[in-house]
Amino acid sequence: MRAVCVIGLGLIGGSVLRAAANAGRPAWGATASEEDASAARAAGFDVPTSTEEALRRAAEQDALVVVATPLTAVRAVLRQVAWHAPQAWLTDVVSVKDPVDAEVRSLLPGARYAGGHPMAGSAESGWGAGSAGLFEGAAWAVAIEEGTTPDAWLEAATLALDCGAHVVPTSAAAHDDAVARVSHLPHVFAAVLAAVGSDGGPLALSLAAGSFRDGTRVAGSDPALVRAMTEGNRAALLDAVDDALGRLGAARGSLASTGSLKSTVDTGHDARAALEGLATGARTTETIAVDAAALPRLRELGERGGRVVALADGTATVELPDA
Amino acid sequence: MRAVCVIGLGLIGGSVLRAAANAGRPAWGATASEEDASAARAAGFDVPTSTEEALRRAAEQDALVVVATPLTAVRAVLRQVAWHAPQAWLTDVVSVKDPVDAEVRSLLPGARYAGGHPMAGSAESGWGAGSAGLFEGAAWAVAIEEGTTPDAWLEAATLALDCGAHVVPTSAAAHDDAVARVSHLPHVFAAVLAAVGSDGGPLALSLAAGSFRDGTRVAGSDPALVRAMTEGNRAALLDAVDDALGRLGAARGSLASTGSLKSTVDTGHDARAALEGLATGARTTETIAVDAAALPRLRELGERGGRVVALADGTATVELPDA
Repeated sequence: MRAVCVIGLGLIGGSVLRAAANAGRPAWGATASEEDASAARAAGFDVPTSTEEALRRAAEQDALVVVATPLTAVRAVLRQVAWHAPQAWLTDVVSVKDPVDAEVRSLLPGARYAGGHPMAGSAESGWGAGSAGLFEGAAWAVAIEEGTTPDAWLEAATLALDCGAHVVPTSAAAHDDAVARVSHLPHVFAAVLAAVGSDGGPLALSLAAGSFRDGTRVAGSDPALVRAMTEGNRAALLDAVDDALGRLGAARGSLASTGSLKSTVDTGHDARAALEGLATGARTTETIAVDAAALPRLRELGERGGRVVALADGTATVELPDA
Repeated sequence: MRAVCVIGLGLIGGSVLRAAANAGRPAWGATASEEDASAARAAGFDVPTSTEEALRRAAEQDALVVVATPLTAVRAVLRQVAWHAPQAWLTDVVSVKDPVDAEVRSLLPGARYAGGHPMAGSAESGWGAGSAGLFEGAAWAVAIEEGTTPDAWLEAATLALDCGAHVVPTSAAAHDDAVARVSHLPHVFAAVLAAVGSDGGPLALSLAAGSFRDGTRVAGSDPALVRAMTEGNRAALLDAVDDALGRLGAARGSLASTGSLKSTVDTGHDARAALEGLATGARTTETIAVDAAALPRLRELGERGGRVVALADGTATVELPDA
């Protein structure tokens, strides 16, 4: 099993290190946070004294390097990878893919890279918030770009499966558009909803129940991480916010003019049903040998809601929702 | 203990009937839904054959009548109450208070009424979704209006405490403004967020995780109930939607012009912290004899985040968050 070297041991990186070790893979990590490093060592994990040391070892052992820092630190880490392990197997777990892909192309043209993004998290952050089971049952996007090789994609996808996730094949741009809608806009909505509720004073907050608690939960996340994530996906997020402003404005207009929210409520209900249908509906399975010709096909299946649930001998088992 | 007659046996009314019976109070109910009536009878509850019959019995036993129908059915039920039990002790559990208050004043000038609203629910509806424990630990607004008598207020507040909730004293108008922000706007946001996510197609929905699931959960609620609730609080909800449009537009402008969401994210984080602080922070206790002079004081304490946690011999124990 290929060794795993995780750079960044916060919620996501710390959980990847635990899950990779749990899967029986040689695994070590490094972090700029002394607090996270100490906590990881105290839990029995292998955390060399520096990122340089961790990367040198990755080069020696031909390990998979996993960049698990916030987007704002990615460039600095990639520079270190370029210095110490320029031919590395490389993936990342950063919440946007286009900007990371561009950095890798510029700084690490020799890396065997496929970008990743596990769709799991919590309002907590840091090593202490992580767990080996964080990715169980979660989606984990693995990007297929021009120039992505089957080998590099399989390394990133295998890590995702080893962590208990299923793999959603996608392009970086399609990923960024999608997460703007289903991850970054929810953070903006949570912040706005929390503020409008709080503007109602203590009475409003004391009457808040499940709908407000659920709708504002992620507003409790570390503001620095939320900003790194949302601001890092600016163009796609602007599109999603514009769509939201349009729909909210239409709801406002309908409520003001006719007193009805029928269209808003019905459309939202249907959309939520589609989400639940995708999670629980019937699925067809197909198997695909992951060679260069198969990569565009995998991406197309991802676009249609498909996911890779197993990999063996270079062959992917893909589940696709019934139409 | 005063008997309780619940009209409407859906999620909320059905839970009130169970909780009142659990608290040892004589309790019966009626509903226009044959399905809910059969299910309640099968569970051993006392459900007379008609609303008329239930209300006649309420008049005979000087029971507290609890109107637990959607807002759209309230007028018809109040007409029946006016016919069969015009002097009734009366409360309701409808999600807006001003419109119900106005109907009661017009149709039932002799009723001993104080309006209520338990802040609990789920995305499910109907008798089968209810439970005796639904209101445990929940806030339950009980309105104090011009003309509300201490006796009527105590009857409604006692029911809330018997159901395991704490009581938030408020005016109908302040309640309606507050719930527009913390209950009705969350439903509009959930619907809009679900639609914008679904517009991203199967790929977006297959990448949706906790933030999207939480933010869209209440979009799964029965559209008819969501519309009755939100459309019934039109004026206050329009104000809340306008505030939300303003904040969302400001976030959009800042992201587009400077690339920053600092103000939006920080404000949302502080607001969420205020919510958590109110739930878990230190509280001071005071006791108040509930007479006519005390009612405005109770309402003022509610405005400041206060809540009644016990009632004994006409004296309320009020907890107030430390400033």
